[in-house]
Amino acid sequence: MPGRNFRELLEKKWDEGKFLCVGLDTDLEKIPDSAQKDSTRATMVAFNRAIVDATKDIVCAYKPNSAFYEARGDEGFAALRETTQYILDQAPDVPVILDAKRADIGSTNKGYVDSIFHYLQMDAVTVHPYLGSEALKPFLERKDKGIFVLCRTSNGGARELQDLMTDGEPLYKKVAHLVREKWNTNGNCGVVVGATYPEELREVRKIVSDMPILIPGVGAQGGDLEKAVQAGKDSRGKGMIIAAARSVIFASPGADFAEAARAEASRLHGVISKALVK
Amino acid sequence: MPGRNFRELLEKKWDEGKFLCVGLDTDLEKIPDSAQKDSTRATMVAFNRAIVDATKDIVCAYKPNSAFYEARGDEGFAALRETTQYILDQAPDVPVILDAKRADIGSTNKGYVDSIFHYLQMDAVTVHPYLGSEALKPFLERKDKGIFVLCRTSNGGARELQDLMTDGEPLYKKVAHLVREKWNTNGNCGVVVGATYPEELREVRKIVSDMPILIPGVGAQGGDLEKAVQAGKDSRGKGMIIAAARSVIFASPGADFAEAARAEASRLHGVISKALVK
Repeated sequence: MPGRNFRELLEKKWDEGKFLCVGLDTDLEKIPDSAQKDSTRATMVAFNRAIVDATKDIVCAYKPNSAFYEARGDEGFAALRETTQYILDQAPDVPVILDAKRADIGSTNKGYVDSIFHYLQMDAVTVHPYLGSEALKPFLERKDKGIFVLCRTSNGGARELQDLMTDGEPLYKKVAHLVREKWNTNGNCGVVVGATYPEELREVRKIVSDMPILIPGVGAQGGDLEKAVQAGKDSRGKGMIIAAARSVIFASPGADFAEAARAEASRLHGVISKALVK
Repeated sequence: MPGRNFRELLEKKWDEGKFLCVGLDTDLEKIPDSAQKDSTRATMVAFNRAIVDATKDIVCAYKPNSAFYEARGDEGFAALRETTQYILDQAPDVPVILDAKRADIGSTNKGYVDSIFHYLQMDAVTVHPYLGSEALKPFLERKDKGIFVLCRTSNGGARELQDLMTDGEPLYKKVAHLVREKWNTNGNCGVVVGATYPEELREVRKIVSDMPILIPGVGAQGGDLEKAVQAGKDSRGKGMIIAAARSVIFASPGADFAEAARAEASRLHGVISKALVK
């Protein structure tokens, strides 16, 4: 996409007051019968198209998680590409973040960069911090893309490594400092902090200033949305990409799945908007 | 594969005195003209088949890195599956480790487990430690598979996070302790330590006892093979999976690439064998 820039797309959505990101965690087994087509690939794409059509005017981003597509082999991988292509065609103002949680050594990351930004045409990606910024260089040097570094993840057990004390602060804060102070030389970094940990979210916001924070864990994972907004907003009352997946896309198991997804997305959008003016 | 068990396959290879793992980092752009077929998928598979045919009797494992396949989209993903299928058919005694460096939250890791162990039919996988063991449960509970946790990676810049001091020891040692003492309840864990850091390799070996260590970084990355063997061997003079990729599979850019790969693999095998009896 010549001229397409993740941060610019995102800022426009924030200017429109949109902070909800719908996670396209398209688990084939949960797709309603009414969306079934004659191949795995066609079914996954048809479901995603319906979700995108129903929500594109109220979201700031889409976030497919690669695992649900890879689980279906080459057909799933092709479905992921077709999904991005559909969003580029039908909702070109909405950026797409691939939740891939990648990170290899530098020369190998070039393969992931080719896969994610060229083949799959994503605008942004999530990455693991463990190998350090030198390894992540092929990602970090893409000024037009968004690179979200895992900081404080939403899962139970996240604290096993992330709360280890190092230089007087837990590791997740150290990662936030590193991203802000060293890794963000191209202004394209963000961090991932789960909504399930609002206090940690507040601490990270202090560290990263107005950098984008991707906040998963709302909905099925049980994060408190209002608390997350209070803790996660930046000095401008923006800066957040609040992701909900299963609770939106699988809001109904019936033929009304797309309408139900829109209803739940609208509800979440409303809660976020109210929390922001409090 | 009913009855197929990663650790048993590996132990047999160690009993045969084999410790070299050939990394199938099949970069499409480096495949010699003589191996070109009429599709990306066919070319990648044909190249891998020739490498496997030429080396299967002197290796303890193969290790394709997922990035080089994902870079080629759904065709690359299918080529990866066909490569494992070929090894299962033609070299069923050699285990296959997918260097995928995955890790998501628990429920999502099930997608990766389906992809890596079911669709791609891999015997083992590499994973990031940052989300903790609870997240990795879908991997760790697969007793028949090998789960290699990134500990001290071979890249420059690895120390940015991995050497951070925590509880009086660097983070990579803490990870080694966690894997040994908490994560390995099913006896299926290993750790990844780069050959480029022999002193750290020696330290990790002390911590993990006779657990398998996957040791990349020999060859193109410049790790000293003899030092790595001295530092990496376990109390039985075994325990190592020493991985070389580019220096083996791209040993010659000509039509003799497979013979050249065998020659380089044989040379490395010889160096390892000599270092073990020193």
